[in-house]
Amino acid sequence: MAVQTVATSSETTVDLGPAAALSCRECGHRVPLGPVFACEECFGPLEIAYDFSAYDTEELRRRIEAGPANIWRYAPLLPVPADVAGKPNLNPGWTKLVKADNLARELGVTGGLYVKDDSGNPTHSFKDRVVAQALEAARAFGFTTLSCSSTGNLAGAVGAAAARAGFRSCVFIPHDLEQGKVVMAAVYGGELVGIEGNYDDVNRFCSELIGDPAGEGWGFVNVNLRPYYAEGSKTLAYEICEQLGWRLPDQIVVPIASGSQLTKIDKGLQELIKLGLVEDRPYKIFGAQAEGCSPVSTAFKAGHDVVRPQKPNTIAKSLAIGNPADGPYVLDIARRTGGAVEDVTDEQVVDAIKLLARTEGIFAETAGGVTVGVTRKLLERGLLDPAKTTVVLNTGDGLKTLDAVAGTGLTATIRPTLDSFREAGLA
Amino acid sequence: MAVQTVATSSETTVDLGPAAALSCRECGHRVPLGPVFACEECFGPLEIAYDFSAYDTEELRRRIEAGPANIWRYAPLLPVPADVAGKPNLNPGWTKLVKADNLARELGVTGGLYVKDDSGNPTHSFKDRVVAQALEAARAFGFTTLSCSSTGNLAGAVGAAAARAGFRSCVFIPHDLEQGKVVMAAVYGGELVGIEGNYDDVNRFCSELIGDPAGEGWGFVNVNLRPYYAEGSKTLAYEICEQLGWRLPDQIVVPIASGSQLTKIDKGLQELIKLGLVEDRPYKIFGAQAEGCSPVSTAFKAGHDVVRPQKPNTIAKSLAIGNPADGPYVLDIARRTGGAVEDVTDEQVVDAIKLLARTEGIFAETAGGVTVGVTRKLLERGLLDPAKTTVVLNTGDGLKTLDAVAGTGLTATIRPTLDSFREAGLA
Repeated sequence: MAVQTVATSSETTVDLGPAAALSCRECGHRVPLGPVFACEECFGPLEIAYDFSAYDTEELRRRIEAGPANIWRYAPLLPVPADVAGKPNLNPGWTKLVKADNLARELGVTGGLYVKDDSGNPTHSFKDRVVAQALEAARAFGFTTLSCSSTGNLAGAVGAAAARAGFRSCVFIPHDLEQGKVVMAAVYGGELVGIEGNYDDVNRFCSELIGDPAGEGWGFVNVNLRPYYAEGSKTLAYEICEQLGWRLPDQIVVPIASGSQLTKIDKGLQELIKLGLVEDRPYKIFGAQAEGCSPVSTAFKAGHDVVRPQKPNTIAKSLAIGNPADGPYVLDIARRTGGAVEDVTDEQVVDAIKLLARTEGIFAETAGGVTVGVTRKLLERGLLDPAKTTVVLNTGDGLKTLDAVAGTGLTATIRPTLDSFREAGLA
Repeated sequence: MAVQTVATSSETTVDLGPAAALSCRECGHRVPLGPVFACEECFGPLEIAYDFSAYDTEELRRRIEAGPANIWRYAPLLPVPADVAGKPNLNPGWTKLVKADNLARELGVTGGLYVKDDSGNPTHSFKDRVVAQALEAARAFGFTTLSCSSTGNLAGAVGAAAARAGFRSCVFIPHDLEQGKVVMAAVYGGELVGIEGNYDDVNRFCSELIGDPAGEGWGFVNVNLRPYYAEGSKTLAYEICEQLGWRLPDQIVVPIASGSQLTKIDKGLQELIKLGLVEDRPYKIFGAQAEGCSPVSTAFKAGHDVVRPQKPNTIAKSLAIGNPADGPYVLDIARRTGGAVEDVTDEQVVDAIKLLARTEGIFAETAGGVTVGVTRKLLERGLLDPAKTTVVLNTGDGLKTLDAVAGTGLTATIRPTLDSFREAGLA
């Protein structure tokens, strides 16, 4: 945590608001803000170090509450310039925190159950939050092309954000991606390049491109802009607490892909505590994976500190990262806060998607099926306390993973007569 | 307009806030609030008559501004009880009004161009607004089943709203609807009944069911709850004006299906003027149709007062109503305000979807392609003034009509090497 660290003025070369420098998560080595992501000393991940020292708690709270109904209300806590809300951006965030009383009854939760529904973002996934940060960093560094490797949600989020902001975009995907996903990414009119190979090949190619003159002026949101990009997930923590009336939830269930979202949610909660915006009291963070890609859950249950890579095989494709970079940090956070990491089968994912839809009218992506399914399993195992305030994340929209519930259909077919209606037992 | 009409207390039998009675749009005959939709005297459409007489303008404005970030901020102007925001509802509305500067540049609009983007609603179409009203009426009348006939967006909106509110839902659709649309409607777990027949057969059957004991306790959102349902579209007008800083737009482009949305937007603007919430000055309302279903546009251009039904044949299926009930009212409003009604071909619809996506990062449903395409055509024809503030509605989400842009795809396919990247001319 670099919350209270004061930067020397020489460190700051671009205006990214309270962001003072990049700091290595492993060894603490600091470098000026720039499009770099790995520590030159130890190859550890770089993250943003802030200067929040000038903030008065009550003034900050008022400033946030008077801000726009999107993530830029938290501009004072993000690596963005103070005038960010006036720049062309998709302005994601401030999505609904739904009090899920019907779901709570089904699951036996009495302490208050909430779904943070990020399907309400502009391209209908939480990726809009992180891409919005990367875009502002790209602007600050003078990049003109926004890029990424992707197999789904991220491609659309980057294409849309670049279109709105007037950037060229060039997104790399495996060439044999499903046609529906290709359309969703291609419609924004940027370059969409299919790579003959799998997702690993795509990533390797992107790393090569960054080091080549051909990649000059290119911001890869999830590579050379990753330290900025990742900070977008903090806004989920900020919004949840503000929407609960500036209160920490007791328990929060977060999906794990790379693990970055979970670690940044923890970072966001810690910042709110240190800034005095919420009372400092214990909270537990729980991680959710699909059984078919459960390296972190497996390590958690085995008591390991390291995560052994897996070959993903699950319908929850947006979580299918077999070698999650932030896996060890997730294990640390789950253990330190008294949480846990659990996984569910694909069948349980589908059941949970339907459960959430029929109780709350929220149609979640498979990743939402994972978190709701894991919530049920953790309650059954006694690891989640039903008497505590619990927040479950839905990070995407069911319209993007229709195949998962393709078996759902008509409950009856009748002729257009009242007799036929009665025969079908519908009266 | 029944804005200033004061009801006698005997007329009000249920608590639907400022709604005082139902009033016939044709003959003015009044009946108490109830689940009826046609005048018993002249068979004209019934609409809500309000009692707004007690409102002080500045107090009302403050009350709205302090309200929730959804349609219930306008509860004082809607047929809902004052405590509506606390009831289980999907809470749609307060969607983004996007300043579309890139699109404005492409179209040559200099007076300010905005897209009201209703894809941000819970089930990603404006239907959530109208269903939310119908749901509150259903609650007030003691109904336990929420129903509708539908071929798409409405089925999902009703299923989701009923699930959240604890209603049974039973939605009727043609039995041969595309599988994707069936899944989107079925996932909420209500009854989804396929009718062996076309959409007309489905509608005829629903009317029969309303008159039958088997339909007792059933609220059909777009039939016996239609007067309440239709009022939801007023919230589009309220939000646009409030988001413009309590100011009327000069020009507004609205899609036409039944024509109800356009007439209610006009009603909403008139109410804001009469309540003193916006300055009374001229505005023009423009209607947008697809050429393959353009009965209102055809009548407008021919100078007719009546609308001759057409057999729809267009990719804009959510607007494909060949015999629009509110067609004559639309003609009247377009002429009275100095607007127009125009139509575009399916090819122009697809071009406009892509134009909006690549300029603003907004992926619209075909209906949004219709309004953007018509906006371009009206500018070319000199009927829209490029120097005036113009608002274009996008009423749904591109993810629901992916087929329309199915031809969109990869811009290049390469091997994962820098050489291949350069050969493709991407550097």
